[in-house]
Amino acid sequence: MTTLEAAEAVHASPLVIIPAGAFEQHGPGMPLATDTIRAEHVAELVAAELAGSAVIGPSVPVGVSPHHLAFAGTVTLTTTTLAAVVREYVGSLHRHGWRKILVITGHGGNNATLTTVAQDLLTTHPDLQFAWTPLTSLAADVVAGLRVSEVHGHSGEAETAQMLHLAPHLVHTERLAPGTTRPGELDPVSRLSLQGGHPALTMRYDRLSPNGVLGDPRNATPEGGRAVVEAAVARIVAFARTWIDA
Amino acid sequence: MTTLEAAEAVHASPLVIIPAGAFEQHGPGMPLATDTIRAEHVAELVAAELAGSAVIGPSVPVGVSPHHLAFAGTVTLTTTTLAAVVREYVGSLHRHGWRKILVITGHGGNNATLTTVAQDLLTTHPDLQFAWTPLTSLAADVVAGLRVSEVHGHSGEAETAQMLHLAPHLVHTERLAPGTTRPGELDPVSRLSLQGGHPALTMRYDRLSPNGVLGDPRNATPEGGRAVVEAAVARIVAFARTWIDA
Amino acid sequence: MTTLEAAEAVHASPLVIIPAGAFEQHGPGMPLATDTIRAEHVAELVAAELAGSAVIGPSVPVGVSPHHLAFAGTVTLTTTTLAAVVREYVGSLHRHGWRKILVITGHGGNNATLTTVAQDLLTTHPDLQFAWTPLTSLAADVVAGLRVSEVHGHSGEAETAQMLHLAPHLVHTERLAPGTTRPGELDPVSRLSLQGGHPALTMRYDRLSPNGVLGDPRNATPEGGRAVVEAAVARIVAFARTWIDA
Amino acid sequence: MTTLEAAEAVHASPLVIIPAGAFEQHGPGMPLATDTIRAEHVAELVAAELAGSAVIGPSVPVGVSPHHLAFAGTVTLTTTTLAAVVREYVGSLHRHGWRKILVITGHGGNNATLTTVAQDLLTTHPDLQFAWTPLTSLAADVVAGLRVSEVHGHSGEAETAQMLHLAPHLVHTERLAPGTTRPGELDPVSRLSLQGGHPALTMRYDRLSPNGVLGDPRNATPEGGRAVVEAAVARIVAFARTWIDA
Amino acid sequence: MTTLEAAEAVHASPLVIIPAGAFEQHGPGMPLATDTIRAEHVAELVAAELAGSAVIGPSVPVGVSPHHLAFAGTVTLTTTTLAAVVREYVGSLHRHGWRKILVITGHGGNNATLTTVAQDLLTTHPDLQFAWTPLTSLAADVVAGLRVSEVHGHSGEAETAQMLHLAPHLVHTERLAPGTTRPGELDPVSRLSLQGGHPALTMRYDRLSPNGVLGDPRNATPEGGRAVVEAAVARIVAFARTWIDA
Amino acid sequence: MTTLEAAEAVHASPLVIIPAGAFEQHGPGMPLATDTIRAEHVAELVAAELAGSAVIGPSVPVGVSPHHLAFAGTVTLTTTTLAAVVREYVGSLHRHGWRKILVITGHGGNNATLTTVAQDLLTTHPDLQFAWTPLTSLAADVVAGLRVSEVHGHSGEAETAQMLHLAPHLVHTERLAPGTTRPGELDPVSRLSLQGGHPALTMRYDRLSPNGVLGDPRNATPEGGRAVVEAAVARIVAFARTWIDA
Repeated sequence: MTTLEAAEAVHASPLVIIPAGAFEQHGPGMPLATDTIRAEHVAELVAAELAGSAVIGPSVPVGVSPHHLAFAGTVTLTTTTLAAVVREYVGSLHRHGWRKILVITGHGGNNATLTTVAQDLLTTHPDLQFAWTPLTSLAADVVAGLRVSEVHGHSGEAETAQMLHLAPHLVHTERLAPGTTRPGELDPVSRLSLQGGHPALTMRYDRLSPNGVLGDPRNATPEGGRAVVEAAVARIVAFARTWIDA
Repeated sequence: MTTLEAAEAVHASPLVIIPAGAFEQHGPGMPLATDTIRAEHVAELVAAELAGSAVIGPSVPVGVSPHHLAFAGTVTLTTTTLAAVVREYVGSLHRHGWRKILVITGHGGNNATLTTVAQDLLTTHPDLQFAWTPLTSLAADVVAGLRVSEVHGHSGEAETAQMLHLAPHLVHTERLAPGTTRPGELDPVSRLSLQGGHPALTMRYDRLSPNGVLGDPRNATPEGGRAVVEAAVARIVAFARTWIDA
Repeated sequence: MTTLEAAEAVHASPLVIIPAGAFEQHGPGMPLATDTIRAEHVAELVAAELAGSAVIGPSVPVGVSPHHLAFAGTVTLTTTTLAAVVREYVGSLHRHGWRKILVITGHGGNNATLTTVAQDLLTTHPDLQFAWTPLTSLAADVVAGLRVSEVHGHSGEAETAQMLHLAPHLVHTERLAPGTTRPGELDPVSRLSLQGGHPALTMRYDRLSPNGVLGDPRNATPEGGRAVVEAAVARIVAFARTWIDA
Repeated sequence: MTTLEAAEAVHASPLVIIPAGAFEQHGPGMPLATDTIRAEHVAELVAAELAGSAVIGPSVPVGVSPHHLAFAGTVTLTTTTLAAVVREYVGSLHRHGWRKILVITGHGGNNATLTTVAQDLLTTHPDLQFAWTPLTSLAADVVAGLRVSEVHGHSGEAETAQMLHLAPHLVHTERLAPGTTRPGELDPVSRLSLQGGHPALTMRYDRLSPNGVLGDPRNATPEGGRAVVEAAVARIVAFARTWIDA
Repeated sequence: MTTLEAAEAVHASPLVIIPAGAFEQHGPGMPLATDTIRAEHVAELVAAELAGSAVIGPSVPVGVSPHHLAFAGTVTLTTTTLAAVVREYVGSLHRHGWRKILVITGHGGNNATLTTVAQDLLTTHPDLQFAWTPLTSLAADVVAGLRVSEVHGHSGEAETAQMLHLAPHLVHTERLAPGTTRPGELDPVSRLSLQGGHPALTMRYDRLSPNGVLGDPRNATPEGGRAVVEAAVARIVAFARTWIDA
Repeated sequence: MTTLEAAEAVHASPLVIIPAGAFEQHGPGMPLATDTIRAEHVAELVAAELAGSAVIGPSVPVGVSPHHLAFAGTVTLTTTTLAAVVREYVGSLHRHGWRKILVITGHGGNNATLTTVAQDLLTTHPDLQFAWTPLTSLAADVVAGLRVSEVHGHSGEAETAQMLHLAPHLVHTERLAPGTTRPGELDPVSRLSLQGGHPALTMRYDRLSPNGVLGDPRNATPEGGRAVVEAAVARIVAFARTWIDA
């Protein structure tokens, strides 16, 4: 996209999609950029479905990943800095005339910061509408239908499946190895942290899993990944259509 | 509590509970401080149940409420400032020797900021465990069993019920009035915002409800409030016991 | 106060009073929240005297108390964070239409930060008038007439007396114990720090007094406390009346 | 002073004096840099008296002057930025080994910020002692003995006298003109602001005085200025000697 | 790269290269991401030459581009936020054990911020070595040998040539159009801004060129681009080898 | 300058010059304030040449000098704080009506921060023009004609010469001593750092030179200093004239 297309898109494409990810450990078999890759692919699929009413803005390739810092290669932003980055992306787009921004984040660690940005924008940019969405949890029902371990999550069945569908050449399938798969492998505080719901307790991943994985990625299949991705795309597209038409 | 009790509690009471609330419109019948009042009451009930293994720290009486600013009296912090306040409370308590902190927030607008604080603390205070919990959503199943409107939420049946149970003298029952109770009363973007799940779209409350209320608080009962509060207290206590014993 | 009263007060009550305190050691006999309790009580007395031309906003329950951190239970904000909190309270109230804000601080450690807020508001909110006042030093002449030690101050005769008048059930009178009462008990640098006037040298309280007390709180009486409080209230009320009528 | 003298001074001269001033209107007859000039002169006089046990660090030539911004040429820092500047001067000196820092401020608008710096340093640099002092108010008794107007202060008799003593070539004596000299010339809110004591209300100077002056600088004499300066120097020196010897 | 390769690289590959770019107008014919694309390609070429002694970290896809904001699609960070992003990338890498970081920036607007990061890191991370380099100006001699206009620069001959070499499918060659090519087309202040050297005056690009281009990109050739890229790569590699071996 | 002259200058003198320097080691023979002294002198010479169309604003006496912190007496600001200081000077001057600001920095360590300020001002103050200039590098050709060592720079021949011309009474000529003068005295990383051009690697001066000097200041002459200063002044004046007349 050049500045000419951007100038047209301000009028023709009311929605800008920003993919956000992370640069963090994804176990022995998946790349550090896994979350960014998934977010960018889904953003493209969503934009394609929206057929001209949405454009894709710059990515946020590093997110909030302090819980993975014990694993080599993880790069993290503080929540303050991620918020500033997103706010400044949005401020620039607002200046050009866009009023609807959707961040698609492949990394759950960005969720809270995105919400804080949304809240602060209500005051600073009252004429802007800012939405964000995660990926995998959008399709929780589809994931539930896959073959997943009792404990599953980061770099587990669902996330690996998405990568096998979207970017199989980046997955070292021969290295995929189970991480924590049963609550009994966890110490009591870690179990509390992973039980879902509230109270919420944030823990470092090196305490939750020796190899940084929750679940057994060997059970992931490209078909399962496609199902998750398609469900996520469909739901984002449905949301976006209603929003754009409103 | 004096400094003498605090000095003992550092050893005897490993958990500090911080109540957090808001100072924001709660419709025509409930006080601006509703969320802080509920959080402080629940904190006391939880601490009483924990019988000496938890103490209560200072409250956070103002939270993140930009979505309510169109209604008179609402006072809000930015997410940056709330994060700084909580971080500095925690930093002070950590200095005295506490390593487990639980924030009970009566205001959902604080949730995201509390998560960002939890994330940043992983790096700055690796030997600390920080948890937080909302109130009403802890007892979503109990709320579902109450007589609630199709659309319900802020200052609606469940929140009013809690106040009728915990601080009935502060509720102007004669002024309680229904707000938005059915999706059909909402414009399409507002409906998107309230549909729950993701994508998440944050909206100002003056667009969601003319009087700032979601649901019909006239249907609230003290008994319903007690059920919600007791469920919330029980779940927080169960969590805290496991955590403290771990 | 609900949002309805707030909406009326924007027009009827031109002044908003914000009580500010601290959460810090107050010797063996008084609660950590002593300063907030006194500020809130005085705010109520002042508002009552002003009979409808002033309303009370949210409290600031934690202030700037790094000098007390050696004593258990003390929680402190940095001056940066306290300034942000007050600025955002004021900004919210300004948005609703209020143009006169008075902070009553029960804690002298907040004074400087309140002045910096006042200075910065001259530029950011030129149509706002922001005033603040301490409590005990407002009634220095009354305190001088009480039975006070040669060295007296924090948690000493005057402050304890106020608590015996305003919240006697929170004072452990049996535990009240003298702290530093004569200059000879101080090392030379501490003496410099306490001599009053300038140059000003800020010191930690654990160097000034083994139990965190300056003076002998056993000599405090509720009558003395009432005299201090009444003088402070009268002076604030006189100020506020002139200000509101101007 | 070169780095060689600095290296010696770390051991021989335990005290560093930092002069702080302002760049703000001082009425029709005195330079914008008046406060910095007075602070630097007094710093030199104090250092000379201390004969080798103190050195002078870099000046802070611009201070907190938002109340003078309506008058041309005034340059101001926010309180946040002044605090950062002083904190970083102090941090650098601390790194070299100094543990006693005294800021002499010729501008009262800096006082509160200097106190906030002192408070925050208790936590960040617990082994450092930081003091600060104003000038004119150090010699309030001497000023009271001068021929001063009922209302006097900024750019008035005492300040002009100091300049006539310290830097007479920079005073346009022919332009000196009275500003506000009697309370009756002030509107009620301005009178509140200038009455001294508390509550404290900060006002813009263009509301307090048409020419930015409080008092009648035509009555200033070099002899009066010398008396003020000598008293201030003597008191700072006495303080510093006690401090250094402690 | 997975976390396993990262864990090995901490030991085997002492250098991490971070590509930094911009998301800004590049005239009618080149993509908004031009600078990031060039930086990433050069980073890969450099890493390939260094054969295992360097790895590539996450990109910075948006830089400091306020001068291009008048052109649609440009997204900019403030210098403060870019500095925070780079500092946090570096801080994470430092934590894993890397001590040599090289940022390759395809966007000159990032240069100053990168230098400020380098300066601040001297204090915060004294055991780290941080270097950065631009691209085109590394090969100024090669550029001088190309067919360039009298005025040339942003999106001009040299930059377009690099893109024709590195990513020809992203260049709309049919749309390439000359921008400002002679000093006579500029107003006097713009001429000052572009004269190079000092004093330096920063101007908005919509004042410098109607289409955002300096020079005539129609004269760009892939061969010229290859020469520029190869020179830049060779110089970075030579620098890196000396550095790594030191 | 009083506020009266400032009020006239807003109309008569469209340009404000701000001298910026440093407070850092300048070897055994030159004062810590060397850079500020040179900047202030040059500012005065430039203003004199511009004969009424420029005025001089407040100085910035401390700059960004972390690379000199190993040498006693050096005081440094972070780049963030220097940027805030300059931005607030500029903001104040802008408020009075000035639209052209020129910072003359005697210290190269400030260059990058001044550029970041210039960039951010494009967005925050679009009607302002901000320029900055170093000193010595403005006259690189003149310096090349002096008798300089192979390695020369900080506190070397050119800088010392300027001081011998501008402020000879502040130079301890008997103490002037050579620092690093040949590349062979440097370790390989230091050589990389000093080779000029890019990649740029910022190093601490205690690694570059045992006495903090680059070059041999004994070869400096007042005549050489005059030539450098006159060239710098002439070039700044030429720039300013074009700018003012534009």
